[in-house]
Amino acid sequence: MKKIETQYKTKVEFYDLDPMNVVWHGNYVKYMEAARCDFLEKIGCTYDDIKNAGYAYPVAKMEMKYITPCVFGQNLVVKTELEALEPSLNFKYTILDESTGEKLFCAKTMQICVEISSRKTVYTPVAVLKEKVETYES
Amino acid sequence: MKKIETQYKTKVEFYDLDPMNVVWHGNYVKYMEAARCDFLEKIGCTYDDIKNAGYAYPVAKMEMKYITPCVFGQNLVVKTELEALEPSLNFKYTILDESTGEKLFCAKTMQICVEISSRKTVYTPVAVLKEKVETYES
Amino acid sequence: MKKIETQYKTKVEFYDLDPMNVVWHGNYVKYMEAARCDFLEKIGCTYDDIKNAGYAYPVAKMEMKYITPCVFGQNLVVKTELEALEPSLNFKYTILDESTGEKLFCAKTMQICVEISSRKTVYTPVAVLKEKVETYES
Amino acid sequence: MKKIETQYKTKVEFYDLDPMNVVWHGNYVKYMEAARCDFLEKIGCTYDDIKNAGYAYPVAKMEMKYITPCVFGQNLVVKTELEALEPSLNFKYTILDESTGEKLFCAKTMQICVEISSRKTVYTPVAVLKEKVETYES
Repeated sequence: MKKIETQYKTKVEFYDLDPMNVVWHGNYVKYMEAARCDFLEKIGCTYDDIKNAGYAYPVAKMEMKYITPCVFGQNLVVKTELEALEPSLNFKYTILDESTGEKLFCAKTMQICVEISSRKTVYTPVAVLKEKVETYES
Repeated sequence: MKKIETQYKTKVEFYDLDPMNVVWHGNYVKYMEAARCDFLEKIGCTYDDIKNAGYAYPVAKMEMKYITPCVFGQNLVVKTELEALEPSLNFKYTILDESTGEKLFCAKTMQICVEISSRKTVYTPVAVLKEKVETYES
Repeated sequence: MKKIETQYKTKVEFYDLDPMNVVWHGNYVKYMEAARCDFLEKIGCTYDDIKNAGYAYPVAKMEMKYITPCVFGQNLVVKTELEALEPSLNFKYTILDESTGEKLFCAKTMQICVEISSRKTVYTPVAVLKEKVETYES
Repeated sequence: MKKIETQYKTKVEFYDLDPMNVVWHGNYVKYMEAARCDFLEKIGCTYDDIKNAGYAYPVAKMEMKYITPCVFGQNLVVKTELEALEPSLNFKYTILDESTGEKLFCAKTMQICVEISSRKTVYTPVAVLKEKVETYES
């Protein structure tokens, strides 16, 4: 499978901070999700396209490693790389400080394909997603 | 209309705190919603009952007044009072410290009734809700 | 006082949606806060400048009116207008759909000035904020 | 090290749901944190005790496995087990449906001990925590 990596930029907001004055650890899940949606939009296959095809990709596994805490106003780059399309959709994420390039966080997610009507797990990728991945040119 | 007031108890969690070490102001919306769901459950008319009747009650207006900030581990009581059933569903909320009874926060919400199928606003209350309010004995 | 209005752009993320497939009503507080931080940054007076001067501006009152629900992927513009600097900091917000200009939401917040060391309320604006407001040219 | 396991009960709130009408995957981090705080409270060593001793335990790693989605109003039990105190604080979590006992989710976290004043990582447990773990009787 072709390697595809996209970059999503975001900025740390006040409401994502905790009493240590850094991003609360659970809020990185939002950065990852926004980056993943951005990835899908960039390759031309949105959440809605997948839903309209009758499928959903719920997150089945997630692992995160926190390196350096993110702080208020910090500009972040989330690099999102597609690692596998089947039997599950696997992404790898790296969050960097936009100006210094320092690596702050990394993570992986595994999403399984579920047919919405039957609620059954499917081990082949949704056709529209597969096609967009194969024809994507960065 | 009969006055109904319920009490919902909750506790301040770490993830609701902000860098000032108090509950972030936006998180009070969650306390209000949980208290409102608890109110509906206590009178015997849940969100699902309303949905199954074909209606939804989205929040149309909300106003809040912050008196004293809530802190980590604090036990709270949210008093929820039904103020009107029509033409909109109006609730009034007061958050107190459970042990001292100190008033920490108060708020009001107005929810309008929408028929899900037509997306039209309705100015009479959903039958199941009206009936439960009328027959409720605290 | 001079009228200052800034515009902050944002996009609806998946994690802000509720089961009705629209933005959960409590999440608008985040849009308002991000827009307010952006306002302060644009006039040259950040949260940190205020904190370093020894003050904080906790939200004391908030009122919101929901007109049309925001949906996934929608591009939003939050117009933020400073209405008063004293005795409290008052802002007015309007959220519009970026492409159609449709008004989706409006709100007001009142923030009181608190001296961090004494925890006392102050009814005059923090000097750095007042100066930046007076010298701002849009 | 002695095996300690505590049970924390919670209920799924509306604001934790996503458009699939199940708990949004990122919100499980909140259940885990609340359960961990509850664990510490039960053994007699709160976040504040650790902070007052001059230390913090930020989350350094986290991994989650989603088995069956949680739904609105569902009563949950989070079992929290301490797996290691040094060189890092490791917890294991299992979320079950309270009435059926069905396993819905499991996770692990690793937290490192940081001395707040020096920001340095420490590989021995904070004394107050170690003592409370050793003397705890369930």
